[in-house]
Amino acid sequence: MTRAQLFEQIRKKQSFLCLGLDTEMSKLPVQILDEEFPFFAFNRAMLDATHDLIIACKPNLAFYECLGADGWKQFELTVNYIRYKYPEIFIIADAKRGDIGNTSKKYAETFFGQIPCDALTVAPYMGSDSVLPFLEYPEKWVVLLALTSNPGADDFQMTTMENGEMLFGSVLRKSMEWGNPDNMMYVIGATRASMLRKVRELVPDHFLLIPGIGTQGGDLSAVAKYGLNSQCGLIVNSSRAIIYADSSARFALTAREKAREVQEEMAEILKSIL
Amino acid sequence: MTRAQLFEQIRKKQSFLCLGLDTEMSKLPVQILDEEFPFFAFNRAMLDATHDLIIACKPNLAFYECLGADGWKQFELTVNYIRYKYPEIFIIADAKRGDIGNTSKKYAETFFGQIPCDALTVAPYMGSDSVLPFLEYPEKWVVLLALTSNPGADDFQMTTMENGEMLFGSVLRKSMEWGNPDNMMYVIGATRASMLRKVRELVPDHFLLIPGIGTQGGDLSAVAKYGLNSQCGLIVNSSRAIIYADSSARFALTAREKAREVQEEMAEILKSIL
Repeated sequence: MTRAQLFEQIRKKQSFLCLGLDTEMSKLPVQILDEEFPFFAFNRAMLDATHDLIIACKPNLAFYECLGADGWKQFELTVNYIRYKYPEIFIIADAKRGDIGNTSKKYAETFFGQIPCDALTVAPYMGSDSVLPFLEYPEKWVVLLALTSNPGADDFQMTTMENGEMLFGSVLRKSMEWGNPDNMMYVIGATRASMLRKVRELVPDHFLLIPGIGTQGGDLSAVAKYGLNSQCGLIVNSSRAIIYADSSARFALTAREKAREVQEEMAEILKSIL
Repeated sequence: MTRAQLFEQIRKKQSFLCLGLDTEMSKLPVQILDEEFPFFAFNRAMLDATHDLIIACKPNLAFYECLGADGWKQFELTVNYIRYKYPEIFIIADAKRGDIGNTSKKYAETFFGQIPCDALTVAPYMGSDSVLPFLEYPEKWVVLLALTSNPGADDFQMTTMENGEMLFGSVLRKSMEWGNPDNMMYVIGATRASMLRKVRELVPDHFLLIPGIGTQGGDLSAVAKYGLNSQCGLIVNSSRAIIYADSSARFALTAREKAREVQEEMAEILKSIL
């Protein structure tokens, strides 16, 4: 998917919401548990209920791998379902991959060649040759970890380098030599909205994937205040606050209501740029 | 597996060799291709041929994920086969995982709870809470990326922080607050053997997993010179130089010969400490 197509979808849906599919057996509504592929059935219900309110979705691989081969199958079924039923939705495999060149090449083959995802989250620690193989696929995206939403972000990402940069700033700066706003985005935790000003100075044009709205405590208006650019430039993820809002038979309807609340807030925010 | 058990195995086998299972369809001997589970069949042949010469093995997840659900199944078959046939062998899932706490917990459940691996490679970029969930499993190990063998290691790992440390040094120092030599090891690339002296000053007692012997150009005697400690403290990996040494019908015999060559060199090195 191109950046122009992504922005077109944002304009059309008046939304920059990403639905996080952190699907977990213990949290599924009881009526789903009888299905042959319960994760897939739940994800399908979530997509059918929210597809016109979201522009992206983000299955988190950890939750699927936990079921072994059967989990991988349900991850693939989910991606294929979205790809064919809702082709406009941007699919981010949240897998935090990254390894030496020949290994990253294999991961790229998996998530971009075999499985039709649009984007993959990638960890930057191993540097250029761990990221470049993912950028060889046209219209596919690397979502590079820069400043994450968890407490551990303070351990390394926020430490200052000899040249005065924080490590996450160094990741932003160096990675701009590898990719560009048409094939690279960055993960920036919503719990650090005030840092977004600093981030936007370094990467004014890139899309930012913002996790941490909802359960992790981020604030949408603060994120928009510092993060919005002329093409929106934000994809804001919400997982548990939407998909697990209700475990009764109404679970899909409630998920839609929760997604609608966020989308309406986003439509207000988008008025300033559209 | 405990550190004492690992050292006991090293003494008994006179080896600190780890067999890297970077299994790839295009490199398998033709007679393996007819098998229902060709990756598993190949891995089993490799283990049967080398088990008395190696102390660890390291399946690289990227190569298995590339086959989707079927690849995961063959990864699991491989780990289970080793666990029951060669229970002394230390199994490292080379997956470079690491995410926010609740997600790392899922990865830990997968690789330590569901699948009986002994260790998992983990990326440090997201800090403490991305690593700690893996340390909650007794006798399981985190193998934390510190200084890797690829060119991209220069981008961030080798950069100097405000306090004068290089980033990889900061990773070593801070991670010692999370784990200890009985549940944590570090990845240190063999292509940087001279840096091992610096590493050993910081972590004298920890085991180091050294990739990059063989195809990646590392030198075993240099690694031993700077990295050996009184309990060996080294696990040296070789993948392609052993498993793809020969694609003829003699492939398993040749793999054994290659592993034997390395093991004999290791036995010489171990004389200085045993």
